[in-house]
Amino acid sequence: MPGLFVAFEGGEGSGKSTAATAVAETLRAAGHEVVLCREPGGTPAGEEVRRLLHLDLTPRAELFAFLVARAEMVDRIIRPALDRGTIVLCDRFEGSTFAYQGFGRGLPIASLRSLNAFATAGLSPNLVLLLEIDPEIGLRRKLGEEEAIRTGLESLEFHRRVFEGYRSLAGKDRRWRTIDASLPAGEVAHLASRAVEDALYRTPRPV
Amino acid sequence: MPGLFVAFEGGEGSGKSTAATAVAETLRAAGHEVVLCREPGGTPAGEEVRRLLHLDLTPRAELFAFLVARAEMVDRIIRPALDRGTIVLCDRFEGSTFAYQGFGRGLPIASLRSLNAFATAGLSPNLVLLLEIDPEIGLRRKLGEEEAIRTGLESLEFHRRVFEGYRSLAGKDRRWRTIDASLPAGEVAHLASRAVEDALYRTPRPV
Repeated sequence: MPGLFVAFEGGEGSGKSTAATAVAETLRAAGHEVVLCREPGGTPAGEEVRRLLHLDLTPRAELFAFLVARAEMVDRIIRPALDRGTIVLCDRFEGSTFAYQGFGRGLPIASLRSLNAFATAGLSPNLVLLLEIDPEIGLRRKLGEEEAIRTGLESLEFHRRVFEGYRSLAGKDRRWRTIDASLPAGEVAHLASRAVEDALYRTPRPV
Repeated sequence: MPGLFVAFEGGEGSGKSTAATAVAETLRAAGHEVVLCREPGGTPAGEEVRRLLHLDLTPRAELFAFLVARAEMVDRIIRPALDRGTIVLCDRFEGSTFAYQGFGRGLPIASLRSLNAFATAGLSPNLVLLLEIDPEIGLRRKLGEEEAIRTGLESLEFHRRVFEGYRSLAGKDRRWRTIDASLPAGEVAHLASRAVEDALYRTPRPV
């Protein structure tokens, strides 16, 4: 049986990694083998990419830095896990590129799709869970009230474009499911687990 | 007057950086403003990319690492210099991607061309000087006799593919000039300077 590849997407402070961790626990408790990963970290190259991203890169250079990490992650972690029949839960994947570098930074989406497809060798998630939260609330959650006012909210316009970008992506692709991330974390995790179980048991999987 | 963009290409030990440095001196002595650069270094991101390349990256990840450095170099150094009317001499550019990642590692050239064009925003050299040397001689030059025998020559097949790749690229693009890099360094530098001066004074420049 081929594995299932689930990506968690959403803006800052949407609770993606909390939800992904909770879903992994639920699935493991039910006897599934699960690999949990997080972009851009998770490989030695990904950690170097994190260092790169602390520099003030141009938008195109930033994009390529993410694609270094993605290409490594696909070849070394995700594809081998799927080939073993494992469920892969990834905190951010190609959706983040389209939302952040495309809608956020203004790079053309069509180019991003073809650059990304080369990085992933065509591998795309079976299911994308969009944790949707108002960007202002998300930034306050993530940064804390004071820090959000001091720095984060300066870039609120950018995060609003990312939010609208995610909406647009989710509206055009049947693999995307939107979850209201303003709900309590336990409820978000429950909805996310249910969506993954639906995908696991009910839908054909064209990996 | 728009600047002139010259790339130096060639295999290991072909003397590109020696030749580029000598050409820069000749041009400066003649009163030209010259920017000398070297991929992937030369920007803070480029230095981080060097660290990345010490990891054992997959071919696609390695490609994207080079493109991070190239995108930064084009936006921060090459394009601004050309806009000021400066001559830019670059030790390696897109030709290295096609020769090493394409012919050497086997990534498809058509994909590499479109990925590279995105990284450079379409900027391509006016003149490419290919310093051609037999790969075995080049590796011995670069690594020293003993080291070449111990490690370098293991990868000789790879470097032979790169060599043939460069030949093929030079044969199909009128902007490329091939220089026999087995000649003494002073003669290589003289031929390279003359080719740059030809391009500077005689040919129209469609930057």
